[in-house]
Amino acid sequence: MNQKKAIVMMSGGMDSSVCAAIAKAEGYNISALHINYGQRTQERELRAFNDVADNLGISQRMVVDIGYLARIGGSSLTDNLIPVSKADLKSNEIPTSYVPFRNANILAIATSWAEVLGATALFIGAVEEDGSGYPDCRSEFFEAFERMIKLGTKPETSIRIFTPLIHLSKKDIVIRGIELNAPLHLTWSCYASEDIACGVCDSCALRLRGFEQAGISDTIQYATIQ
Amino acid sequence: MNQKKAIVMMSGGMDSSVCAAIAKAEGYNISALHINYGQRTQERELRAFNDVADNLGISQRMVVDIGYLARIGGSSLTDNLIPVSKADLKSNEIPTSYVPFRNANILAIATSWAEVLGATALFIGAVEEDGSGYPDCRSEFFEAFERMIKLGTKPETSIRIFTPLIHLSKKDIVIRGIELNAPLHLTWSCYASEDIACGVCDSCALRLRGFEQAGISDTIQYATIQ
Repeated sequence: MNQKKAIVMMSGGMDSSVCAAIAKAEGYNISALHINYGQRTQERELRAFNDVADNLGISQRMVVDIGYLARIGGSSLTDNLIPVSKADLKSNEIPTSYVPFRNANILAIATSWAEVLGATALFIGAVEEDGSGYPDCRSEFFEAFERMIKLGTKPETSIRIFTPLIHLSKKDIVIRGIELNAPLHLTWSCYASEDIACGVCDSCALRLRGFEQAGISDTIQYATIQ
Repeated sequence: MNQKKAIVMMSGGMDSSVCAAIAKAEGYNISALHINYGQRTQERELRAFNDVADNLGISQRMVVDIGYLARIGGSSLTDNLIPVSKADLKSNEIPTSYVPFRNANILAIATSWAEVLGATALFIGAVEEDGSGYPDCRSEFFEAFERMIKLGTKPETSIRIFTPLIHLSKKDIVIRGIELNAPLHLTWSCYASEDIACGVCDSCALRLRGFEQAGISDTIQYATIQ
């Protein structure tokens, strides 16, 4: 019997690495998709992606450049004129780091690849987590995307979207990662810098709070801890 | 009052050029999106895109390269090992020229751009036309994509997808193009070659039949006419 195939979106960050470990534990043969979209920390994330994929034994990888998202602009992650906002985990505002419709662009690529490979599952480590507030990280969005895939691919194609972290807190993600032996020490989360994590951007703040609440120490280096 | 804004997908082909002429006639301020996806006739289509945009007075243009679709493969349009099938307009099979999930990739880019520009409309010249059979050219697909946009963009974003040609025959498209003075003579439709249209691929066959049924002569040159 053929092993079931999945495409896993892997940024090199903590969430997508735990997501990949979950897909692996569920018995999928994984093809890993990494996206460069002109983000500030592109090189560092690519290194983390390869380190994590090595660690998990994933050999089929595709790196896709969608630098047009940086040309389109509208986000502090890709536009140097928009500052990366300091985390405000209590705010309801969509952070400046929101890249317009990024996840739809990434999932469209993954779906094209899945249709050609005959993969039946897309795994994405999106998290609704209080405070992140990106519209394209909510379950309703992924459900709508899955329905759209059904209508936009060949009749014999059957692709489901799995978001195993969607309702987890960062604390739960850290704990799940440790349980599955996911290589958290190889991941990169900081939105602002590539050498030492800043400790104050949205992404660092959420990660640090998660480790703290899980009672586990984060072994990567930080410049500042709030 | 600000003029309403639209993104129009423009390949340089006949359908999307008529679609752009329709959007213009409806009073939209148009930004034109052209996609290179590693198709055989990429250079020729880009030239047609610029010629048509010049003719329609569209100055805001973006050309995006999604060559990863060629790396992903699965289509005769991007993979030289898969022959471009001769047209069989009576068949129910999906033609080899189907590029897996191409329209979703293109619409995702258009949506990102629309969200940043504040455009409220996406125009795409997709046609359900008997015989083309691409799953991502059907109204149900576009309706599902529109619902997905609503859930995946900021709450204040409102983007609708318009497919004014979806139920038209190629004959009707030719007639509509002539009525609107769309520059059909500058468009390029052939999937197989870049100098003189082959006349026998799916796209040429549909175009030629449309002109013939409309009783209008197509002024571009063909190598062979079936």
